Amino acid sequence: MATVATLQSWIGGRWLGAEASMPLHSALNNSLIYHTHAEKIDFDEAVTYARKTGVPGLMALDFQQRAARLKALALYLASRKEELYAISHLSGATRADSWVDIEGGTGTLFAYASMGSRELPSSNVLHEGPAIALGKNGGFSGTHILVPRGGLAVHINAFNFPIWGLLEKFAPSFLAAMPCIGKPATATSYLTEAVVRMMHESGLLPEGSLQLVIGSTGDLLDRLNGADVVTFTGSADTAAKLRTNRNLIANSVPFTAEADSLNCAILAPDVSPDDVEFELFIKEVAREMTGKSGQKCTAIRRIIVPQQHVDAVGTRLRERLAKVSVGDPSVEGVRMGALASKDQQRDVAERVAILSRGNEVLFGAADGFKPLGEGVADGCFFSPTLLLCRDGMRNDAVHDVEAFGPVSTIISYGDMDEALALAARGKGSLVSTLVTKDPLIAARAVPIAAASHGRVLILEREASVDSTGHGSPLPQLKHGGPGRAGGGEELGGIRAVRHFLQRAAIQGSPTMLAAVTGEYVRGAAVQESPLHPFRKYFEELKMGDSLLTHRRTVTEADIVNFGGVSGDYFYMHFDDIAAKDTQFGKRIAHGYFVLSAAAGLFVSPAPGPVLANYGLDNLRFITPVAIGDTIRARLTCKRKVDRNRVDDKGVGQGVVAWDVQVTNQNDELVASYDILTLVMKRG
Amino acid sequence: MATVATLQSWIGGRWLGAEASMPLHSALNNSLIYHTHAEKIDFDEAVTYARKTGVPGLMALDFQQRAARLKALALYLASRKEELYAISHLSGATRADSWVDIEGGTGTLFAYASMGSRELPSSNVLHEGPAIALGKNGGFSGTHILVPRGGLAVHINAFNFPIWGLLEKFAPSFLAAMPCIGKPATATSYLTEAVVRMMHESGLLPEGSLQLVIGSTGDLLDRLNGADVVTFTGSADTAAKLRTNRNLIANSVPFTAEADSLNCAILAPDVSPDDVEFELFIKEVAREMTGKSGQKCTAIRRIIVPQQHVDAVGTRLRERLAKVSVGDPSVEGVRMGALASKDQQRDVAERVAILSRGNEVLFGAADGFKPLGEGVADGCFFSPTLLLCRDGMRNDAVHDVEAFGPVSTIISYGDMDEALALAARGKGSLVSTLVTKDPLIAARAVPIAAASHGRVLILEREASVDSTGHGSPLPQLKHGGPGRAGGGEELGGIRAVRHFLQRAAIQGSPTMLAAVTGEYVRGAAVQESPLHPFRKYFEELKMGDSLLTHRRTVTEADIVNFGGVSGDYFYMHFDDIAAKDTQFGKRIAHGYFVLSAAAGLFVSPAPGPVLANYGLDNLRFITPVAIGDTIRARLTCKRKVDRNRVDDKGVGQGVVAWDVQVTNQNDELVASYDILTLVMKRG
Repeated sequence: MATVATLQSWIGGRWLGAEASMPLHSALNNSLIYHTHAEKIDFDEAVTYARKTGVPGLMALDFQQRAARLKALALYLASRKEELYAISHLSGATRADSWVDIEGGTGTLFAYASMGSRELPSSNVLHEGPAIALGKNGGFSGTHILVPRGGLAVHINAFNFPIWGLLEKFAPSFLAAMPCIGKPATATSYLTEAVVRMMHESGLLPEGSLQLVIGSTGDLLDRLNGADVVTFTGSADTAAKLRTNRNLIANSVPFTAEADSLNCAILAPDVSPDDVEFELFIKEVAREMTGKSGQKCTAIRRIIVPQQHVDAVGTRLRERLAKVSVGDPSVEGVRMGALASKDQQRDVAERVAILSRGNEVLFGAADGFKPLGEGVADGCFFSPTLLLCRDGMRNDAVHDVEAFGPVSTIISYGDMDEALALAARGKGSLVSTLVTKDPLIAARAVPIAAASHGRVLILEREASVDSTGHGSPLPQLKHGGPGRAGGGEELGGIRAVRHFLQRAAIQGSPTMLAAVTGEYVRGAAVQESPLHPFRKYFEELKMGDSLLTHRRTVTEADIVNFGGVSGDYFYMHFDDIAAKDTQFGKRIAHGYFVLSAAAGLFVSPAPGPVLANYGLDNLRFITPVAIGDTIRARLTCKRKVDRNRVDDKGVGQGVVAWDVQVTNQNDELVASYDILTLVMKRG
Repeated sequence: MATVATLQSWIGGRWLGAEASMPLHSALNNSLIYHTHAEKIDFDEAVTYARKTGVPGLMALDFQQRAARLKALALYLASRKEELYAISHLSGATRADSWVDIEGGTGTLFAYASMGSRELPSSNVLHEGPAIALGKNGGFSGTHILVPRGGLAVHINAFNFPIWGLLEKFAPSFLAAMPCIGKPATATSYLTEAVVRMMHESGLLPEGSLQLVIGSTGDLLDRLNGADVVTFTGSADTAAKLRTNRNLIANSVPFTAEADSLNCAILAPDVSPDDVEFELFIKEVAREMTGKSGQKCTAIRRIIVPQQHVDAVGTRLRERLAKVSVGDPSVEGVRMGALASKDQQRDVAERVAILSRGNEVLFGAADGFKPLGEGVADGCFFSPTLLLCRDGMRNDAVHDVEAFGPVSTIISYGDMDEALALAARGKGSLVSTLVTKDPLIAARAVPIAAASHGRVLILEREASVDSTGHGSPLPQLKHGGPGRAGGGEELGGIRAVRHFLQRAAIQGSPTMLAAVTGEYVRGAAVQESPLHPFRKYFEELKMGDSLLTHRRTVTEADIVNFGGVSGDYFYMHFDDIAAKDTQFGKRIAHGYFVLSAAAGLFVSPAPGPVLANYGLDNLRFITPVAIGDTIRARLTCKRKVDRNRVDDKGVGQGVVAWDVQVTNQNDELVASYDILTLVMKRG
């Protein structure tokens, strides 16, 4: 960089910051690369802007439309990723490290766009059913809805993943219609600033939906209320301090923390040094030690190994670490870059000194460490460092002291119970890896490990082909662990969106619940019209549109014919002697015949707007159908979701779920289910 | 009571307390009824007992077995309920008030027993699927499990519902295998002591699963760790104080608060004084004001009414309140009892004084208040008190000051937006009621109200027949609200059990995930044997037992015959001209034919252990089946749940879910679903 730029905050709809304040340095050579800005942020303005402009802007869209925006945003950022890679280099990251931050970030946007589109409604009320009847007369039911909270999300992030860290929180809170104020750790805030700048340049963000704070959060947390949410990623100490903010406590503002933890990998006793799994274990540990120079909250800090294999593990890891070239990632062959700052370098060195007390250093700076590259002598490099603790149950430091760099300790164990006890000594971690060949070992160990770890990876040869690795949080899976890891939950699919919504129980008549949830509830008023609901286009169809079919008397011939067509000659349908001994006392019709006959009752045979019946959910056979019984079906439009999709020919279509109730001559429910269809749009 | 008993704590497996300490008085006449005990509790002993004895005792049972214990416990307590009613009278409660506490409490145990039995596995790992493929080669998938945390639950409760308050938290935490330390509010702790005594006398509790603290919690909270959980019901101030306990913060101990809040009822503008709904509104408000003498955290404190109906509402409520006889509930005709203590009586009086400033008192002590009964002059009685606030947007006290007694304020509004804004001024409440006849009003208002209320009741004539009322938390529905209400979630069906479990993401090969979850995951290893899986009894059947069927070529005749049997002549199956225009370009077989033919492929016709196929879930038609295609099915035992049930004839049975994959000649998936069966036990 030729000139030293001053980073800017985006507050109240404009960039703020011209005067230079704190200097930020390159991790590679300590050269000055940016300044933070000196201008104070008016957090009243920021919060007001989020509430008055951000919330209405986001609420003008529905879940589906916000998901579509996320997808467009992901595509836009992906098209500009090389600009981000160029900046990321300054943080000491290798291309692979930056990939996690940059493409991991856009990938998370893509994933949330896709999950949102598949799983969320085209409204702003998410029905978490089913509705439950609460009375005997059918007039009163209860269910749950999830709604946008009407507040804002403050996302406070760590220095190690300045892009992914923002995006993985922004994506679900954006879907939940929460405007976001992002506050990256200052050391690498230039990357967050770059990506936020792009997001605004995309023109895809509703006004007020994303603000950025470079520097301190000032009195921001004192201005929040119970509709808002704070998420924090960083050290446990800072989490504890923020969590007790008087205003957050007074207003029960949800505070989610994801803190560094002393994650572990366990080599199970069934794996011997000759097994493929032994090598998988060594590779995984080495990768986690050196990836992002060990600056990952998920990195393996504790290597829990059967005592008989401690030496073999030590030897193989040492060999592997010796081959890792450390230096400026622009130098060919360099596989590990620098720590993010001089502060980090000092901090890691101090903690290694603590960990060394009473433990052996198997590999470290003494083993000829010298970073590769020009002018890197003043960079923030640190040698991979491997320690060995032979008595993990007595040594506290290995379970309590985290060196946030390429540092890990082998801890020996006697039996699997001891291994699990050692793992739990971390007092709550984000992730653990268990390497075993034996499903029985996994079945016993994983539920125990799961009580104190947010994620557990089971690794063996079959999984290794596709494994995403110990250190990678995935959008589909929960990230966050109990205890020391902060007790929070992030990601985990649509769960993450739910965490940013407010759940409420609602009670009332089925008609009222249907009106509120947008989903037909059994017992609610229906509309019947001469036009068959299957002949209505998506736009015309209304939740509650209903058809009560003609009737059909089920005969012995039906059972016989259905057996012939299906090949299903089960004794309950065909063996008069055995059927007498059943709870029904006689032959009954096939359940699938009832299902098929119901389709025959409500089908509308000519081509029409209903394009396909692609599935069926929650089928229950309730009352058996005997020979001579007369059945009919009620088909009711239950739920419409407009995913804003068009088919190959440009014809728009939406998803429609139908409630089906098949009853007999006594109005008893015979079968109950939902069918899923695609319905054409007129327009 | 002839003698004054000293209440006892149950700690470390024994009753503790002989020496009298703090006196407790009857709410009816202030007579001395109990003492707390003077002996100090050793909380190290209590916590150690819970961890070392309680956790293993609970983990020796599975979810289903714990559900069965809950049911037995509910039956036992129900059989002794009259003993509890007798004691409850001392708290100033009417029979109806006590019903909520006593039978509401046992009812919650019954409900959790039933939900646990229906929804939880017969193991200690709850699979929260579905598993998701995470790679392209099928070797790596991810899913989530919920497991017991291995810690204990401290339940700190309020004085108003000393029995229900404990049981509604005990039930889900017991299911989650957490030993519980209950700490009731001292004023009415004699009722909690009585019910805990019965629970121990039942012989149904695993040792260490329930301890009781009479008096202070001392240093209990300082002894907890990240595996433990604290729940609190009471004032927001106490919640804030406990929540910032240094040890709880340092260990991220989950802390769930349910605090009193300024709940409201809104009369919508569509309801006029002549409507049935107007009277429903008056009744609901009056009942909530006087039930439990207004000492309910859910009671209606704010009565939000259109300005044109303020006078009518005031008049009718006054008339109703005037008819409420207050006094000793043993006196015939008394409908409202006493407050729980002298402290409460003083506190409510002080708050009424604050609320009176700037507001009119429409009904109160001045209206000839004199409690009925003998010797009640020194009891803790308080007159129903109704206030009127004509400018709710400017008056803070009505939204902030809660008089925890039979006290409520009418607040007038202009339009519905103002009504909702007034409701939100409570800054987060447990519950609001909306009385309206109009589903469109409900559809617009409820999602807005839901953002700041944990529960919303919509009341009109249809719902009124079965309505459980504004003030009643139900086991099936979430209890707890955002902001001032504490931000917690309790109850809400099996959600409550999940809150006491630890969720972990797990990743690995399908075989490993199946071993850990106890549920077959697509791609996992299966076992095939000459014996058809439908011929195995419940005990013999293993998850992963699988059958790959013979094949069947689908012919034009099949489509014709299936159309004839079902009556389904949809053009995609029968109209060669129209079918050419579809995405498939030709006629295809009925989806339900595929389903029926698959059943024909895997059926085992003779009588056997499979008693019934009672349902089907997650059916998706993936690839269409054309004339000439050849299909087969793979049927795999997916999940077994032993609910410890026997049928009428004493034959044991379990629930078995089967994974079904129907494929075509190219091994493409044609249809995918789960079928649900009941399978007989051999033993």
